[in-house]
Amino acid sequence: MSTANRPVLAITVGEPAGIGPEISIRAAWALRESANCVLVGDAAFLALTASLIDPAIRLSALSVQALRNGGLPHFGKDRLAVIDVPLGAHVVPGQLDAENGRAVLATLDLAIEGAQAGWFDGIVTAPLQKSTINDAGVAFSGHTEYLAEKTNTSRVVMMLAGQPQGSQPYLRVALATTHLPLKDVPGALTRDNLTQVIDIIDHDLKTKFGIAAPRILVTGLNPHAGENGYLGREEIEVITPALEGARARGIDARGPYPADTLFQPKYLQDADCVLAMYHDQGLPVLKHATFGRGINVTLGLPIVRTSVDHGTALDLAAQGLGRADCGSMEEAIRAAMQMAASRRP
Amino acid sequence: MSTANRPVLAITVGEPAGIGPEISIRAAWALRESANCVLVGDAAFLALTASLIDPAIRLSALSVQALRNGGLPHFGKDRLAVIDVPLGAHVVPGQLDAENGRAVLATLDLAIEGAQAGWFDGIVTAPLQKSTINDAGVAFSGHTEYLAEKTNTSRVVMMLAGQPQGSQPYLRVALATTHLPLKDVPGALTRDNLTQVIDIIDHDLKTKFGIAAPRILVTGLNPHAGENGYLGREEIEVITPALEGARARGIDARGPYPADTLFQPKYLQDADCVLAMYHDQGLPVLKHATFGRGINVTLGLPIVRTSVDHGTALDLAAQGLGRADCGSMEEAIRAAMQMAASRRP
Ligand SMILES: [Zn+2]
Ligand SMILES: [Zn+2]
Repeated sequence: MSTANRPVLAITVGEPAGIGPEISIRAAWALRESANCVLVGDAAFLALTASLIDPAIRLSALSVQALRNGGLPHFGKDRLAVIDVPLGAHVVPGQLDAENGRAVLATLDLAIEGAQAGWFDGIVTAPLQKSTINDAGVAFSGHTEYLAEKTNTSRVVMMLAGQPQGSQPYLRVALATTHLPLKDVPGALTRDNLTQVIDIIDHDLKTKFGIAAPRILVTGLNPHAGENGYLGREEIEVITPALEGARARGIDARGPYPADTLFQPKYLQDADCVLAMYHDQGLPVLKHATFGRGINVTLGLPIVRTSVDHGTALDLAAQGLGRADCGSMEEAIRAAMQMAASRRP
Repeated sequence: MSTANRPVLAITVGEPAGIGPEISIRAAWALRESANCVLVGDAAFLALTASLIDPAIRLSALSVQALRNGGLPHFGKDRLAVIDVPLGAHVVPGQLDAENGRAVLATLDLAIEGAQAGWFDGIVTAPLQKSTINDAGVAFSGHTEYLAEKTNTSRVVMMLAGQPQGSQPYLRVALATTHLPLKDVPGALTRDNLTQVIDIIDHDLKTKFGIAAPRILVTGLNPHAGENGYLGREEIEVITPALEGARARGIDARGPYPADTLFQPKYLQDADCVLAMYHDQGLPVLKHATFGRGINVTLGLPIVRTSVDHGTALDLAAQGLGRADCGSMEEAIRAAMQMAASRRP
């Protein structure tokens, strides 16, 4: 772990033809006083992009070899560090090119290596395009899955978070299942799976977020949380037993509650995290409430990892620099900073 | 249809042991200048309840026989009309009693009779307790289903609506499927069903809401709207063909869009209605955004019907009068007034 006051965060700039490089540079530059961000991507392409965004932005190359030899990734607050991971082909904004797929993956590999070696206090990932990597001949199902595999983590939990507008409390929504066809969700929800998910949420809210006694509110799977079995039995057979087990281990996990009423602010104010059973039960509210400023946190990893809650926005990138909103990226960096601070001894 | 300037609305007061009678009286009294509300329930119980809420509230009995003989349900703005439908048993707030199940159903029958006969311009229903009616020996699966059956309507669509806080546009969310176990949702979603749902939404937004060219945005069934078939094929095989068919008939129905991004305000501002595929995909956002002031509208009926978006709140009723929020009931009355006005020639 870094000895600096500012946490050191690796920022993988993601799909080069998308908005990732732009929002990475802009967000890291905006937050340079508080975070020591290390951009991981093609140094020449990043230098060109930065000069077009704002000629005042200064980048400095950081040698991987020096880090591997024990050097620390420290620069002053007047510049951003860059670790060069060269692309395979010239970048045309908005146009995917499989020639660059392996380089995108290499930025992740380097960030993981550095987080595990202690060069970085956390990783923030800009969006990538799965198809570019798959088209490059590498089977790849997503950032989160890749991070889990590379860190030998058997189970991770996807959590989105953000500050709603107005006076509402900060909102965290974790998912019991993630990117599955809807028809496969009921079958994927077992008591064992749910138990592991709840344990990870409780553990990470304590250790990475500094919440001493996390309060977890859990939705049902079915409408009205099954209405006493009338609208489905998973609440009775799976969710309630898993919650009883968690409470017996001292975890404050309550429910199952009907999802349509649970997300009302009067209930959310009593929750540190809502655990939704599936993707479209939990994320529409979060993204509605946070207005594109939500972030994605991977729980269960041995390292800190956050990311934006949006995609590569190829259409926006094709229109040129200056159109993308780097708000979610800034929030992702801030969240990683806080998580890194909570983990420090 | 009434000849008065104020539309005439029947308000069925719902489960007597819940908050329905209180919120019906308070909302109707608050809006008496603009709506001619006719409470349908036990007259003696309503008179007692009204006197405890506010001694200034004046009720006057309205004879069903007089209405059946051609009389009109008009009173001055200084009182609420009541049609007496006697309960079977004494009411203990918070305690369900199957003896009262048939009377609750009889209030609905009377409201439907009156709406079809033209005594009423619309019906507003306070929440009832399904189990009370079932325990009284009558198979009953819900207000909406009952109204459909009694009016010989083969298909209705549930829509929730409300004004979010802040400067966001009015939000309407219709559901392609409603109260089904989650595992039964994919099978219930056929091209025919979806086509009928879209036609009803388009028709009713035009005829009951006065929207000349309704814009309907439609979610996918699966996460990320199936991600080109990678996360499910219903978008390709069911939803997209149904939308293409609707557009060929001149309906402005677009999608399928990923539910988690569609509910962001920047997309909602271009929609008169969002069609979600199932209950917990659409309603958490709506109830979150409208803070308990949402309403429920049944589309597809030959009559105007709105209701609150919450339940009987037996626990609140048990604590005595004065605790329930009649905001959703007021909104339901206002919406019925506007719909009645849109329907007038
Ligand atoms: Zn419901
Ligand atoms: Zn997703």
